[in-house]
This record gives sequence, structure tokens and C-alpha cells, in this order.
Amino acid sequence: MQEQIFHLQYAMDTFYFLVCGALVMWMAAGFSMLEAGLVRAKNTTEILTKNIVLYSVACTMYLVCGYQLMYEGGFFLSGVGSVDVAATLAEFAAREDGFEGGAIYSKASDFFFQVVFVATAMSIVSGAVAERMKLWAFLAFAVVMTGVIYPMEGAWTWGGQSVFGLYSLGDLGFSDFAGSGIVHLAGAAAALAGVLLLGARKGKYGKDGKAHAFPGSNMPLAALGTLILWLGWFGFNGGSVLKLGDISNANSVAMVFLNTNAAAAAGTITAIVVSKLLFKKADLTMALNGALAGLVAITAEPSTPTALQSAIFGGIAGVLVVASILALDKLKIDDPVGAISVHGTVGLFGLLLVPLTKEGTSFAGQLAGAATIFVWVFVTSFIVWFVLKLVMGIRVSEQEEYEGVDHAECGIEAYPEFVSTVK
Amino acid sequence: MQEQIFHLQYAMDTFYFLVCGALVMWMAAGFSMLEAGLVRAKNTTEILTKNIVLYSVACTMYLVCGYQLMYEGGFFLSGVGSVDVAATLAEFAAREDGFEGGAIYSKASDFFFQVVFVATAMSIVSGAVAERMKLWAFLAFAVVMTGVIYPMEGAWTWGGQSVFGLYSLGDLGFSDFAGSGIVHLAGAAAALAGVLLLGARKGKYGKDGKAHAFPGSNMPLAALGTLILWLGWFGFNGGSVLKLGDISNANSVAMVFLNTNAAAAAGTITAIVVSKLLFKKADLTMALNGALAGLVAITAEPSTPTALQSAIFGGIAGVLVVASILALDKLKIDDPVGAISVHGTVGLFGLLLVPLTKEGTSFAGQLAGAATIFVWVFVTSFIVWFVLKLVMGIRVSEQEEYEGVDHAECGIEAYPEFVSTVK
Amino acid sequence: MQEQIFHLQYAMDTFYFLVCGALVMWMAAGFSMLEAGLVRAKNTTEILTKNIVLYSVACTMYLVCGYQLMYEGGFFLSGVGSVDVAATLAEFAAREDGFEGGAIYSKASDFFFQVVFVATAMSIVSGAVAERMKLWAFLAFAVVMTGVIYPMEGAWTWGGQSVFGLYSLGDLGFSDFAGSGIVHLAGAAAALAGVLLLGARKGKYGKDGKAHAFPGSNMPLAALGTLILWLGWFGFNGGSVLKLGDISNANSVAMVFLNTNAAAAAGTITAIVVSKLLFKKADLTMALNGALAGLVAITAEPSTPTALQSAIFGGIAGVLVVASILALDKLKIDDPVGAISVHGTVGLFGLLLVPLTKEGTSFAGQLAGAATIFVWVFVTSFIVWFVLKLVMGIRVSEQEEYEGVDHAECGIEAYPEFVSTVK
Repeated sequence: MQEQIFHLQYAMDTFYFLVCGALVMWMAAGFSMLEAGLVRAKNTTEILTKNIVLYSVACTMYLVCGYQLMYEGGFFLSGVGSVDVAATLAEFAAREDGFEGGAIYSKASDFFFQVVFVATAMSIVSGAVAERMKLWAFLAFAVVMTGVIYPMEGAWTWGGQSVFGLYSLGDLGFSDFAGSGIVHLAGAAAALAGVLLLGARKGKYGKDGKAHAFPGSNMPLAALGTLILWLGWFGFNGGSVLKLGDISNANSVAMVFLNTNAAAAAGTITAIVVSKLLFKKADLTMALNGALAGLVAITAEPSTPTALQSAIFGGIAGVLVVASILALDKLKIDDPVGAISVHGTVGLFGLLLVPLTKEGTSFAGQLAGAATIFVWVFVTSFIVWFVLKLVMGIRVSEQEEYEGVDHAECGIEAYPEFVSTVK
Repeated sequence: MQEQIFHLQYAMDTFYFLVCGALVMWMAAGFSMLEAGLVRAKNTTEILTKNIVLYSVACTMYLVCGYQLMYEGGFFLSGVGSVDVAATLAEFAAREDGFEGGAIYSKASDFFFQVVFVATAMSIVSGAVAERMKLWAFLAFAVVMTGVIYPMEGAWTWGGQSVFGLYSLGDLGFSDFAGSGIVHLAGAAAALAGVLLLGARKGKYGKDGKAHAFPGSNMPLAALGTLILWLGWFGFNGGSVLKLGDISNANSVAMVFLNTNAAAAAGTITAIVVSKLLFKKADLTMALNGALAGLVAITAEPSTPTALQSAIFGGIAGVLVVASILALDKLKIDDPVGAISVHGTVGLFGLLLVPLTKEGTSFAGQLAGAATIFVWVFVTSFIVWFVLKLVMGIRVSEQEEYEGVDHAECGIEAYPEFVSTVK
Repeated sequence: MQEQIFHLQYAMDTFYFLVCGALVMWMAAGFSMLEAGLVRAKNTTEILTKNIVLYSVACTMYLVCGYQLMYEGGFFLSGVGSVDVAATLAEFAAREDGFEGGAIYSKASDFFFQVVFVATAMSIVSGAVAERMKLWAFLAFAVVMTGVIYPMEGAWTWGGQSVFGLYSLGDLGFSDFAGSGIVHLAGAAAALAGVLLLGARKGKYGKDGKAHAFPGSNMPLAALGTLILWLGWFGFNGGSVLKLGDISNANSVAMVFLNTNAAAAAGTITAIVVSKLLFKKADLTMALNGALAGLVAITAEPSTPTALQSAIFGGIAGVLVVASILALDKLKIDDPVGAISVHGTVGLFGLLLVPLTKEGTSFAGQLAGAATIFVWVFVTSFIVWFVLKLVMGIRVSEQEEYEGVDHAECGIEAYPEFVSTVK
């Protein structure tokens, strides 16, 4: 019977990973809809294309080399599908920490859960460089980002490897539960490098330095995308407990769901209130960014705070993201969907919240981790973008930007039948 | 080993709650898309804003006070995340009804499952008052509804408390499995109170008393919203079995999924057939409301009927909802999305179906419960709406209504680039 | 304790079916959005109506007679919801192959998982006949397809019955894990029969024989639909392992998730690259069809290939689907969404891949199965469509087609407020 119990625990933990992974995969649809809703109609088909192809590139590159770089030992090219039941049962029986100890589950479910995280990191980039980045330059970048850049910093953090043999982030007390830094800040760093090399969209900033609003073309899509992300985030954070199958871990997973939801709700509320106070209007896009900010902020540690603390953290993040969006516009860093603020500014904030509720972590460790991730991703991304700029160019021509990248890159309009007020 | 089995049952039942709760959270997207699709373009951003913010308000208010009112004992402000494993195992061992008895699972997962129900009740309101209600008055109402009004009637029903110490609905044989009354009728009662105080949209009813159709601006969104709700309802009803982890309960959960689907399918079919017979056209919006009516009708008891009975119940609900929508229009009760008919009329119908298949229930008990819920929610809501009307006003100005509430409240158009045929 | 373990395994396997079934139900939304995005605006309401009603018809007909035809023994009209716990436990104890043997789970969960497959098969048809098929003729066909045609071939394959008492596909070594043939090729065969009798849309093929592009009216919806299908496919293939609750099976489910994702990703990449090479543009609709082709191709056997093999299979499918779409246009077989290519051509391809990785299967057996499915579904569908054509007509009038079927059939425009460039 003991073996049967091990069978059940293995199956339960595997299924838990798969369900959570499927929810994270669904975030690809969230980013797609959010970005499609926030760009102008003439750039919609291309942003959709970028999103579905980047997801595919991420899944393929992580399969080919990313997972191996991050966790050592690639097993996907041979003998897949076979698992030695007797050996697995022996592994269970030999666990030093027993039934309530580390989870044993299908490696394939682990890969599935990990691979969708890579895609998330890359999805962050597409929004920030929207409306003027060349499609194929973007996809070339995606190959390097998902095959090497992300897996390297993933190896130093979740993979437990030392940074170029120099220092270990784990030893420094760095902790990032589900990836405020490893996924979100990393994505934002890559995006920022791209945006700096790319420049702002034509006409975004007037000669007087003022930012002109380019309203998103489809608010229901933006709202849908945000709600998809919110749902998917339960898998993103909930699955990061890494085990379901005993009382303590199951309770942790539940707390993570609860706290993730509480933080997002509070971020939504503070962002809409701040937007009302600042602009006299209830700015839906700020509410959406507030929700996402709440989610990003809690991601670095959603299991140790109380629900009240989670709501407070999320609420602050909702204010912070509005401030960051306004600040970046002052700096003329043109990010059409606010991705750098949501994932970068708030990702850093999330990392810094961890020591408030989690023992064994420190601000110094969190800063070291944030700096390592940011410097690595920003510098390597900048180099890659720069090489791409030299080799093939990263920005569409002025004429193509004016006509919309859909026409230039995809030859398909997103809404061919709706008469447009622009152009 | 016995303890390990308890661990697994706890983990399984916790995960089941979390998955079902995530599906119910997803219903927030369903209501958002459904309502965004059924209103006119000029009121779309605002209805999206209402939906995402009301969800956030509901989650926050239920955390702060709602759950405590409904179930006694709030534990979310302290010691969260810690669960005493030994005590939990002792609780398992001491269960009088043994392994097949009451479920023991994470309290946090219970909260997560409950909180998304509150949001559902509130989502019903937003559709009925669409296109002319002030955003901030609506949100102020949401605070009271989700913090007090819903939790109070929830306490009398699922919470098992007596109604103001006067009588106990449980003793009267009232039963509402997943909330045809407690959630749906309650939401509709709050909506009706608001609609009566708010009045109809400008131009909805001509001087001759005829209702003018204001066609929904985006049918794909309406269909998407309905399908999201259909999916989410598996969590709504399926999770309400409250336990998965033994043969009987697992089978009940499966029957609930099956019956929920059968009722929705039948409601869709009868509604589209009736609309064809009445209007000579296959009215998609009626099919969508028919699906939702089937879902609401089966919600009061989805576990005891056979699949055939479920289909019959859903089929009748599909006819009933069309009749109710037409009747409300005759009464000049202006409900842009048909929410009062779908959730109110059919919610009551669902309650009355319960005694047909469930032992220990009676029509008298169901009527007592329905009356209690309706009177409480309607009266308190009416008072709150009335106070809000006096204090800040609940209706936008005629000019704002004409220009669309998006402009007045949000300053953002939903589809800024699409040339409109109206206005 | 042994009994408690059986309880848990039963509950786990039941829940696994329900979660996977819910994901497959979600594919109904995927087809709805995909098709709504790919047709012209004037035909959008009608395609949405078809999709939601066909799902409802499928669920109802399979309940009434389909399941009984396919698996013998209908139990849904009586005694539902009651399950004999003691008998079930005895069944567990008597399993010859023990704990790691065949799954025992709720029959209701099995029905739920099966019923959503029928709807998928029927959904394939709606896209191919879009923009000119009469609504009620389509629904009449849906009744026969989901009540008889699909269940018959399902009985010969998954049901294990011999084909009219003549031969057994199982004995011939035919294998179709999750339905590349049984669901997808079958749907495509029914669609092809309809399209041949229906003819091409007005103006699709010029006098010079050239195909004119009718661009889809809403690309975000098409992308959303594809991503929904991608997500739902994890349930479609993952649930087809039919058991989760031991180490081997749990690992198989995980491999299926992983391989399904890898195939879809590779199909997306090859399709977008091929479209770029052929048309000089990155054609989003080809990327979407490439993703779906990858999914269909792996569906016949997603558990035995390695991840690398899955990616290769999916990649070839992505090329194949583009070729098939172009070829069908040459043949003037007008399929507005490419459904016959995605589900038919690639469905056959998927069947033929099985012997490459799965022991005990043969190309001969796969061809015999494919031929049986295709001939049966195509011939019976042709007869039904033909009878419908005689009795009520299957094609709308030229005037109705010109004005859009939304007007003729539904009386509701999908986007009533957006000024259109056409008509």
C-alpha cells in the first residue's frame, strides 16, 4: 500500500504542475489580447503574429537548449516517455525528509511548467517594442533570449548555479518565489534595451517634449487580456510552490492563490483611484496596469504574507505603476503598453518586498539578485539588439511605420472592413 | 500510512477548490465580455471598468469583512499561511463519519472559492444598470453589497445562521446547492432596485410605449462572454459539492459537470427555437441568454437530477428567459443585457425546481428562502441606491448619456479608430 | 486503508477527466472565435449562432442516443447520480492488473469527456461551410452527425465494435490515440461533403480560375480562437491517456502535454516561415493554421514520440497545411477557414505518423482506419446534405449571401455601429 500512496502523490503533483502550466500557457493569450488592444489598429496583426510566434520560438528553443542550460541534463532527445516505476518508487522510499518532503513528479511536467515561463518573459518584450520594431528582427532576438539569455540567469537563480563561478545568489540570501525578478524584471530589462536602441514611435513626443497619447484601438481586448493574465497567474504563482501533495504544501498553494488575487484586486483599486485623482477620469488602462502591477509585485513571494499584507503590497504597486508610466514618458522612453513599468519597476519592487515577510532573505541579497539579473539581461540584450540593428535593422521605415506594420510585415489588416478615423 | 492518506485527501480537496475557484474567477471575464458586447460602443470602456473594479472591490471587501460576517471567525489578518499539520491530522482521525465524511481542506482555498462567488453576484448588477449609471455611485454600491448585503443573506443560508434570530432557513427545508437564489436571485434583486431608481435609458421606450432595440455593439464579445461563463460554471457548480476525495463525492462532482452542461445546452436550443418562432429570426442574444438561463436554473440543485431532467429544466428555463425579457420590456424595466430575467426570474425558477428531485426540501421552504433573499437584498439595496442618489446622484446627465458614459467617466473610447454609424 | 486508497484513485481519475473535459468544452469558444475572426463581418453573427447551437445540439444528441450507440448501454435516463460505493470498491479489489492497471472512475465524468469530443467534430464543419450555408439546414445536419454518424464510427474505433460485423479496426492494428482520424478527419469529411454540394462563395473564384481573397474581418478574434484551441487541446490529448492515477500514466499525461505543445509550436514556426518565403509576408492566418495543424498531427499519438519527434511532426504539418490550403483553392473547393486542410489533410497525416513511434500499429491498419472513417462519414454526410438540399435547401439565396447571412438568418448585425468599407 505504501507504494500505492507514492503512486498517488506522484500523480497528484504531476497533475498539479500540468494544470498550473496550462494556466501559464494561457497567459500567452493574455499578452496577445492586451497588446492587441493597446496598439493602434494598423499594428494589430503584427503584434498578434509576434505573440504567437514568440511563444512558439520560446517553446522550441527552451526544448532544444534552454532547459539544459538552466537545470543541467537534457533528456528530451532520447528515451522520453519512459519512466522507471521501480526506481521512482525507490526514490520515494529513500526520501530523507519523508512524505512531507520534496516532491517527486514527472520530469516532463516540470519541463512543461518551466517552458511556459520562458514564453512569459519574452511576451513582455513584444509590448514595449510594439508599433515600430521589425518582425523578423524581433523573432531573431526571441531565439537568443529564450535559448540563452533567460536560461543563463535562470540557472543562477532557480537553477542554483553560481554566477560565472564568482558568487552564488542563493548564498547571498536572494529569493524570488515565482519570478518577479527572474521572469518579469528580466523581460523588462530586455525590453528596455530594445526600446533605447529603437527610439520612440514617430510623433509620440512633440517638439515641446510633451507626450502625445496614442489611444489603444480596442479596449475590450485589453481588458480581456488582463483578465486572462490574472487567471493564468494563479498557475504562475500557485505552481511555483512546486508541490501540492501534503497538508503544508497544499495550504501554501491555497494561500498563494488567495494572496495573488488579493494583490491584483488592491492594485486595480489604487490605480483607478489614482488615475481619477490625477486625470479626473477613471482610466481603464491604468486599472488594467494596476491589476498587473499587483500581480507582479506579489510574485516574488506570495506564500508568506498575510492576505492583508498582500493587499497592501498590491495596492502600493498600483500607485507605483502609474507613477512609473508617467516618469518613463517624461524620460521619452516610449513603451506603448507600459510593460517596462509593470514588469520592470514593479518587478524590482516585488523583489524588495520579500525580506518583509520571509525569513532568511535580506535587502542586500535581493538587490544583488536584481542587479545580477538586470545587468546580465540588459547588457546581453543590448548587444544582441545592436548586432541585429547592424545586420538587418530593427526598425521599420518611416513610411512603413506611418502605414502600419501590419501592411509592411504581414500583408493582412486586423480589421479590413471597419472604416478608420486615422490615416 | 493512514496519515499519508489524510495528507493526500486534504491536498486533493484543496486543489479541487482552487481549480473550481479559478474557473469562477474566470466568470469575471465572462461578464465583462458579455456586457461589453451587449452595450453600445460609446458605453463599452465604462462597463469594462466597472467589471474589473467591481471584481476587485468584491475581493477586497469580502476579505475585510464579508467572509467573517458570513461564516464567523476571520483569520485573514493574522497567522495566515501557518497550518498546524498535527492538529489537522488529528481532525482527520477524529472524524465521526470517517473517510467518506465531511471534507477537511485548506481554509484559504475555501476563502478563495467563496470570494469569487461574491464577485459573481455583483457582476450581475453591472449589466442591468449599464449605459446610464454613474461609475463611482456603482462602485460605492459595490462596497456595501459585497461587504454586507450579500454576506448577510449568505450567513442565513450557507452560513447556517438564523435570520435575525427569528427563523432558520435550514430548518424550513430551504436548499440552494450552488446559489440560484443566494448568488443569482440576490444579484438580480440588487439590480432591480437600482434599475427602478435609475429609470430607463433615454429613448428606450417611445411615447407609444414601444421598446426600441439598442443593438449590442459587438456580438463576438457577447458570445465569448457566454462561453466563458459556461466554462466557469463548471467550477461554480462543481466546486459546490464541497468535496471531491471519495467515490460518492467524486461521482457527484462528475454528475454536476454533466448536468450543468446538459441544462445549458437545452436552454440554448429552446431559446433559439422560440426566438425563431416569435421573431422569424434566430436571435443570437436569445440563444446566449438561453444558455445562461439553463445554467442558472440548474444551479440550485445540479447533483440530484438525472441528465434528462437537467436538460428538461434547462430547456424550460430557455423559454422562460425569453418570456421574462419580453415581459420586463412591457413593464418598461430597462435591463440592457437581460440580467434581471436571466438571474432573477430564472434564479427563482431554479429554486422551485429543487423539491422535484431532492428529498428533504419543500416548495414552502424554497419560497421562504427566495422571499428572504429577495426582500433583504431588494430593500437594503434600494435604501443604499436611494442614499447614493441623494448624496452623489446615480445617473449621468442627459448630455453625458447621449455622448456615452465612456467619454464622461473614463475619457477613453473603446474603439477610438472605428468610424461609428451613430451619433 | 486499501479502500481509502481506492477512493482517492477514483476521485483523482474522475477529477482529471473533468478538468480535461472542461478544457475541451472550452474549444467550443476557440472554434467560435476563430471562425468569427476569419469570416466577413456580415456573416459573423450567424457563425457565432451556429457554433453555440451546434455545441448544444451535440451535447443533447450524444446524451439522447450517441453515447449509447458508441459505447453500448445508456444509463442517463435513470438512476443517475447513484453509484454503488461497495461495488466500486470490489471492482477495484478485483482488478487483475492491480493498482497500475485500468482506471476506474465516474461514468459521468467519462460521458462528460466524450461529449465534448462530439462537439469538436461538428465545430470543424461550421467553418468550412461558412458564409453561405443556411442556418437551419446546418443545425439539422448537426443532429444527424452528432447523434448517429460520429457515434457509429466512434463505436468501430474507440468503442471496439466491428464495422457492420465485417472487420475489426482494432484487429487490423489501427490506433488513434485522441482522434486525428476519429474526430478531425471525420469532421473534415463531413465538411467536404457539404462544401461539394454547396459550392463556392459568390465571387470567390474568378472567370480566370483565380481565387480571390476574402480577408477575415477580425484578426484578434482569430488569434484568440487559435490560442483557446491550443489550451483546450491539452485536455483533448491529455485526457485521452484515460488514467492519471499511477506513476506510468501520470508520466504519460505529462509527456502528452509536452508533446502537444511542442508540435503546435513547431507547426506555427514552419507555417510562418513558409508563408514568408511564398508570399513575402508573414501571414498570420497561416501561422494560426500551422499551430492547429501541429496539434491535429500529434493527436493520433502524442504519448510515444519524443519531444523532438513531436516537434518534427508538427513542423511538417505546418508546411503541409499551407500546401493543402493552396491546393484546395486550385481545386476550387472553397473552405473559408481552411478547416478541411487543417483537420482532414493533416488528420490523415497524423494517422500515418503513428506507426513511426508506436509498436503494434501498421500503415496498413492506419490506412484501413482512415478509409473506413472517411468513406463512412463522407458518404452518409453527403446523403444527409443531399436530402436536406432537396427538402429545405442548404444554401441561402444570392441576395441573402450578398447582404450577409447575419441579416437573413439572425436579423442581428455583429458590429452594427462600425461603418463598413464593403457593401
